[in-house]
Amino acid sequence: MERNKIIGELLNSGEQGFLPSLSVDCVIFGFHENLLKVLLLKHRHLNMWALPGGFIYKDEPVDAAAYRVLKERTGLNEIFLQQFQIFGEPKRSEKEFHLQDLKKDGINVNEDHWILQRFVTIGYYALVEFSKVNPVYDTISEKCEWWDIHEMPSLILDHRKIVDKALDTLRIQLNYQPIGHNLLPEKFTMPELQKLYETILDKKLDRRNFQRKLLGFQILERLSETKKGVPHKSPYLYSFNLKKYHQALNEGLNDGW
Amino acid sequence: MERNKIIGELLNSGEQGFLPSLSVDCVIFGFHENLLKVLLLKHRHLNMWALPGGFIYKDEPVDAAAYRVLKERTGLNEIFLQQFQIFGEPKRSEKEFHLQDLKKDGINVNEDHWILQRFVTIGYYALVEFSKVNPVYDTISEKCEWWDIHEMPSLILDHRKIVDKALDTLRIQLNYQPIGHNLLPEKFTMPELQKLYETILDKKLDRRNFQRKLLGFQILERLSETKKGVPHKSPYLYSFNLKKYHQALNEGLNDGW
Repeated sequence: MERNKIIGELLNSGEQGFLPSLSVDCVIFGFHENLLKVLLLKHRHLNMWALPGGFIYKDEPVDAAAYRVLKERTGLNEIFLQQFQIFGEPKRSEKEFHLQDLKKDGINVNEDHWILQRFVTIGYYALVEFSKVNPVYDTISEKCEWWDIHEMPSLILDHRKIVDKALDTLRIQLNYQPIGHNLLPEKFTMPELQKLYETILDKKLDRRNFQRKLLGFQILERLSETKKGVPHKSPYLYSFNLKKYHQALNEGLNDGW
Repeated sequence: MERNKIIGELLNSGEQGFLPSLSVDCVIFGFHENLLKVLLLKHRHLNMWALPGGFIYKDEPVDAAAYRVLKERTGLNEIFLQQFQIFGEPKRSEKEFHLQDLKKDGINVNEDHWILQRFVTIGYYALVEFSKVNPVYDTISEKCEWWDIHEMPSLILDHRKIVDKALDTLRIQLNYQPIGHNLLPEKFTMPELQKLYETILDKKLDRRNFQRKLLGFQILERLSETKKGVPHKSPYLYSFNLKKYHQALNEGLNDGW
């Protein structure tokens, strides 16, 4: 069967091709119409799900491996992908889990096989517009789907911990990195931007404080047009100043030091 | 000679003992009397300096390896040590550099020796009170000293990039993590706290904005005493609310979302 052939090749040639002991796992958050979701792969044997992840080729930069995984699972290029933490507990890769897993494919490996060794994984997260994504499952899974962040299924190994940590990090990073480019239309209103923050933070924010704070970051440009066809007073439209936006991604938001 | 014996043992037994391909490097910032310094090791052969670093034992959590390095070089325990980035470019570990280095010790190793393989390094930083540190050099160095952040010597490999990135991260993290515990006396004045921030940021801050922002973080407690024996009006003394301080370390500072 095709799948087993691919897994067999990975097991045979992986030790030559990949950096030992290291993997990447990507927490891909999706935003669309005020919903926050996460992209998960259905395990081929278990009623459990997993993060998109992979190994690092011996001559490949680590960040490039994460971008490769993102591209393979979503079709997306050039998305802002952020390393956020390594997960380095010795027991996290669970030898027995992988042994049993491969047995169900009819594959037996030695106890000292490279796939059973300890892996330290490097966690990355991305935030994408989920309507633009074409999810593709990989060799060791049978589905690739978006899950609501509040209704996640059981995840393998320590993947739930990785998602939780990524979400914590994303929320904290709202304090010092800009967000919204590629997620909002080119021109957007302050309430639309506020909804994005509220969805990620999972709480209501005060309108006046939000506006004052965001304007203080100096990454927004207020356009001369207003949004038409909405009830009450027509709200102003804004766009990101992309030069300042990217500068703030690298250097942190200027909010008053 | 003693040093060569220890290096020889490391080269012989390291492959069995350590996780392959991974290392940790620690950027240890020191603060004392409004100076910011970094702890560096003088290379045993070159007129260059290096960050304290090391390998990870096969059964050791990655964070524990970083704490071990910190303890060995400074004598300090239980310091807040923060993973900030991995450095994963394939060329960063420079095989030729290590080959030449060992040759100067009269040690020849094969081209495929484990020490010459690609290493991904995990960067950690700590900020300590440097008068409390007793710097100790390691086997591959001959001095361990504090260097002013503005007057650093040449560093080996990509260590300068690691220091620069750590400093950028520390500065950005002032926006969402508390700082000062273990660096300031138990009771301190607002100007003393401001000096700490100014030293790290390397710029003057506005007194009123600083006070408003810091009080907004809700990690400070104003004491009923004032500081005596200083010119002009006696300034209030503050201390950290350590429960809120540690909560903010983990969850990010509450500054108004």
